[in-house]
Amino acid sequence: MLDKYSIRTDLALEEKERFESDNVEVQGVILEEHYDEEKEIRVTRVRIETEKGAKVMGKPVGTYLTLEAPNLSVPDEDYHREVSEELAKYIQELIETNKFNKKDVSILVVGLGNRQVTPDALGPNVVDHLTVTRHIVKEYGKYAMGMEHADMLSAIVPGVMGQTGMETVEIVRGVVQETKPDLIIAVDALAARNSKRLNRTIQIADTGIHPGTGVGNNRSGLNKESLGIPVIGIGVPTVVDAATIVNDTMENFITALESSKTLKKAGEVLRSYTAGEKYELVKELIAPHLNGMFVTPKDVDEMVNQISYTISEALNILFVKREEA
Amino acid sequence: MLDKYSIRTDLALEEKERFESDNVEVQGVILEEHYDEEKEIRVTRVRIETEKGAKVMGKPVGTYLTLEAPNLSVPDEDYHREVSEELAKYIQELIETNKFNKKDVSILVVGLGNRQVTPDALGPNVVDHLTVTRHIVKEYGKYAMGMEHADMLSAIVPGVMGQTGMETVEIVRGVVQETKPDLIIAVDALAARNSKRLNRTIQIADTGIHPGTGVGNNRSGLNKESLGIPVIGIGVPTVVDAATIVNDTMENFITALESSKTLKKAGEVLRSYTAGEKYELVKELIAPHLNGMFVTPKDVDEMVNQISYTISEALNILFVKREEA
Amino acid sequence: MLDKYSIRTDLALEEKERFESDNVEVQGVILEEHYDEEKEIRVTRVRIETEKGAKVMGKPVGTYLTLEAPNLSVPDEDYHREVSEELAKYIQELIETNKFNKKDVSILVVGLGNRQVTPDALGPNVVDHLTVTRHIVKEYGKYAMGMEHADMLSAIVPGVMGQTGMETVEIVRGVVQETKPDLIIAVDALAARNSKRLNRTIQIADTGIHPGTGVGNNRSGLNKESLGIPVIGIGVPTVVDAATIVNDTMENFITALESSKTLKKAGEVLRSYTAGEKYELVKELIAPHLNGMFVTPKDVDEMVNQISYTISEALNILFVKREEA
Amino acid sequence: MLDKYSIRTDLALEEKERFESDNVEVQGVILEEHYDEEKEIRVTRVRIETEKGAKVMGKPVGTYLTLEAPNLSVPDEDYHREVSEELAKYIQELIETNKFNKKDVSILVVGLGNRQVTPDALGPNVVDHLTVTRHIVKEYGKYAMGMEHADMLSAIVPGVMGQTGMETVEIVRGVVQETKPDLIIAVDALAARNSKRLNRTIQIADTGIHPGTGVGNNRSGLNKESLGIPVIGIGVPTVVDAATIVNDTMENFITALESSKTLKKAGEVLRSYTAGEKYELVKELIAPHLNGMFVTPKDVDEMVNQISYTISEALNILFVKREEA
Repeated sequence: MLDKYSIRTDLALEEKERFESDNVEVQGVILEEHYDEEKEIRVTRVRIETEKGAKVMGKPVGTYLTLEAPNLSVPDEDYHREVSEELAKYIQELIETNKFNKKDVSILVVGLGNRQVTPDALGPNVVDHLTVTRHIVKEYGKYAMGMEHADMLSAIVPGVMGQTGMETVEIVRGVVQETKPDLIIAVDALAARNSKRLNRTIQIADTGIHPGTGVGNNRSGLNKESLGIPVIGIGVPTVVDAATIVNDTMENFITALESSKTLKKAGEVLRSYTAGEKYELVKELIAPHLNGMFVTPKDVDEMVNQISYTISEALNILFVKREEA
Repeated sequence: MLDKYSIRTDLALEEKERFESDNVEVQGVILEEHYDEEKEIRVTRVRIETEKGAKVMGKPVGTYLTLEAPNLSVPDEDYHREVSEELAKYIQELIETNKFNKKDVSILVVGLGNRQVTPDALGPNVVDHLTVTRHIVKEYGKYAMGMEHADMLSAIVPGVMGQTGMETVEIVRGVVQETKPDLIIAVDALAARNSKRLNRTIQIADTGIHPGTGVGNNRSGLNKESLGIPVIGIGVPTVVDAATIVNDTMENFITALESSKTLKKAGEVLRSYTAGEKYELVKELIAPHLNGMFVTPKDVDEMVNQISYTISEALNILFVKREEA
Repeated sequence: MLDKYSIRTDLALEEKERFESDNVEVQGVILEEHYDEEKEIRVTRVRIETEKGAKVMGKPVGTYLTLEAPNLSVPDEDYHREVSEELAKYIQELIETNKFNKKDVSILVVGLGNRQVTPDALGPNVVDHLTVTRHIVKEYGKYAMGMEHADMLSAIVPGVMGQTGMETVEIVRGVVQETKPDLIIAVDALAARNSKRLNRTIQIADTGIHPGTGVGNNRSGLNKESLGIPVIGIGVPTVVDAATIVNDTMENFITALESSKTLKKAGEVLRSYTAGEKYELVKELIAPHLNGMFVTPKDVDEMVNQISYTISEALNILFVKREEA
Repeated sequence: MLDKYSIRTDLALEEKERFESDNVEVQGVILEEHYDEEKEIRVTRVRIETEKGAKVMGKPVGTYLTLEAPNLSVPDEDYHREVSEELAKYIQELIETNKFNKKDVSILVVGLGNRQVTPDALGPNVVDHLTVTRHIVKEYGKYAMGMEHADMLSAIVPGVMGQTGMETVEIVRGVVQETKPDLIIAVDALAARNSKRLNRTIQIADTGIHPGTGVGNNRSGLNKESLGIPVIGIGVPTVVDAATIVNDTMENFITALESSKTLKKAGEVLRSYTAGEKYELVKELIAPHLNGMFVTPKDVDEMVNQISYTISEALNILFVKREEA
């Protein structure tokens, strides 16, 4: 497959899939899948367990959970509530997997991305809908919340470098040093390889956000190395990389050639190319002006709006309302 | 050229260009170009004079002015003011060309598009920055404005069908019937074929906005037929149709084949395809999921922000401050 | 009471209350109250039945329902859902009271107010959260909605005169003539007399929106007279008129004088003033710069945000999801 | 004057004025005024030179410049440019007064306030319109800017405590520690005592932002003590404290009593009250529900919009375009 080399994806699931399609076993990478028929939610767990696996996957060692639910962007309050509850459960799993299990924790939610660009506004929107509690717990104590245990939730929208003149990691690191949270949850819009992932996918990873991810291309990662505390990354694909289209066109073209009478031969020659050769070819075909461009659906506003509510609600369930039940 | 058949553009200039590149004279279509070296502004006038020309161009009979200025999205207040003044001049030209030259006119500006989707928010943003005057002139008379003559400027952001449940033309027609403007200026975000047009192009046409135009695909046009009064359309390309990428990839691919040793033959065969054959091929290659998607640059927020100010300022110069000078 | 004459309120309930406090029976005005203890929702029905009652109340003949629920602005999804359901029930009641009971109706929701001024943004926000259906029913028929009956919901945010140069009624009348809805529901932010009404009150009236109402002072009413079809007004107090403070200060001052040794006499004299005399006094005390100013709480953003969701949800329940249950 | 004790103002000028009106010399406080007739700009310099003066004024030792220009909120680009240039000059003066005069400085602009509440959105809006340069200078060097000297401008919108769960000073202190700016410029919306100050006043102070200032009441100050580097505060009154209205009503009431036949005596008694007595009286009259409320004009959106542009432009002139001229 050509796309193996050339097309960027922020989803571990998609990275794994392309090996699947080649029937290649990736050493050090384990995949588990679970489908809840009633709720129509599919959860895939990709565990990258070794540095070797990490190298092949182009993603750090850690656990990547992918929730897929059809019509995540359709307005249906009850369904969204269900997804929020599932999401809360899996975020909790990742927290516990990382033996991060103390009570009354302080969590900082970081809403990454650019509020002014619709497909990149997911992170800021999630923060807009959160119920922060750190200032109340700090001032009145946890009993003010009517709870025996109370996590402290704080949140920030750091903005993007073109607006702040600062790297996001500089801002977040400063805030971490001052306010000493135990854990960061960073929410970001992602780029998918396959446009079918849009509108239906949420990825949660205990590896944070790594460099080069997201619609606006964060230059430096947010993770335990850069921030000193665990970082759980929640990502939602809202765009497709423009190079995807080039790749898909190529693949379709080769297929078309193969089924043509006169050009069948050329198709077969191209099909026989090694991955490296195809990579070079696609690189050549990608017009330079495609850099810095993204592909997004026309109803991106509804998608971002609905999914950001679902994620905020999951975080509110997990950290604000936990003890009420 | 493949693009002749397959790729949508809202710019008359680009429609004309592809015939140029084939050295085809289009009967009934006249092109004039003027370049102001000092201001670095290029103005192209495409006049579609006959129904035959209209058919070939896929655009109605009328005059299409295209202003091209480099770095329209770079923040430089003085430069933008200059462009606004040029723009005002050309809007005025179109008004006069249409023998629409009476004094104290009433103009309704319609800001088309979806405020929530960044590349489609140009029209609403232009209206946000306008200085409307109709209500003041109506209440206090033109002398309240300190002027001998006073145009009445009104403005509306009708929203898109997914938000209103109504066709834009229904809303505008209703408002026209109630408030009786003499002229409509409709501002919309457009799709270009060539991504180099983004950030630097403004099109003004005396044919209004025709169906299927814009980022969000207006289903029915705004023009003299549908509204009963002249409509000047101001359009700014903010996205590129996803199909453009497919087409460019194809062209690059054929060139690559031609210069290859083993596949040279296939390249030559493809090159020799008739336009119709190429069209069929590209149609086949366009993945169905590309429908309803658009390609836009990552800094689309700055582009839309700067250019909408430039257009508002042009309209303010033309209709609000005209008599002050 | 001084406030009887001087202080503006858009709430029929408050208008009625001041007569109550004077033990005055207002002929032609009937008040009923109902309190649902479990849901903590109080509903008051003010029926103005005669022109005489209308004159005394300063509001047109019709039914005014007021829903009061504590903490309408506190984020609690379940509670808001309950209020939405009650609200839907009472809107339905007003529709039926007006013998407006046919099936498959077409409703136009008008979101009044200025999107850019937080306490005035309620109407536009309600429209933002609506699920419009008119275009879908028109294109695919009601069976596309999976329903036997389908109302058609459309919506518009007309903007305010300072942004459009047009009276709101001109825009809405035009849209009504073009799209022929059976019924209008107009949503607006209101001014209350008592700041305790903020955050907890929603008024529904079958008399539409009358002139001079709202944060931004609509100059002309939206009602059956001006639009030709029934108009149900939904109003939420988000500001208090600045004059309220003057009045409250006066009242408190007179009380303070009465309980003072040296100034007791003056207090008694003031207390004995006729309503007319007090009115003149308060008018004198209102500093002219207070005109055009309003008083609003610092957390107005949360209030407007929460309540607008509750109202949208009520309208979605009533007109979109009705047949699904 | 009653207002001496009871009414909050964030403007040093207003604090000084009330002593003026009592013909009281405040030791340690110097006032200079300058009026530019042509530009219609009045500049007042209040210098609090001693701790004693600071105590009386309720504001820290330092220099407070107030620029007053009529119609700051009227859209007139040329006039705003003029004010921006003046403003730049006076910000520069304060920088130099503080012997802060090195070249190639790094400035962090902090946009205080709540983006969601119109009169509090001034700070965030100013940051939205800034041209930040720190990341460019850091990556490409100052020659990339085409300049011999290049300041590095960075900016942040920290949000308010109800949205972040953190004190603003915590966030800013963290960012300062990470990015090491030489100087902070903090922009905030202020409360004035006199509503005539709205729409026409900008205050610049070399004392930063002190606790309890602004529409949303910052709980902790941003200044050299809390942040370790100089802080210049730019403040614009966008609201009037609700207590102002109570006070004004009282004053008007006493005047009305004095000119009445029957109540003249009471008026005189009240007039003869000591300041302390009057203070107690007003405190009693202020209804408790007024806490947490503010008074703002209906066209607050235009005011905030225009003035935020003027301030951004001043900062762009000073730190971005300085070397181009």
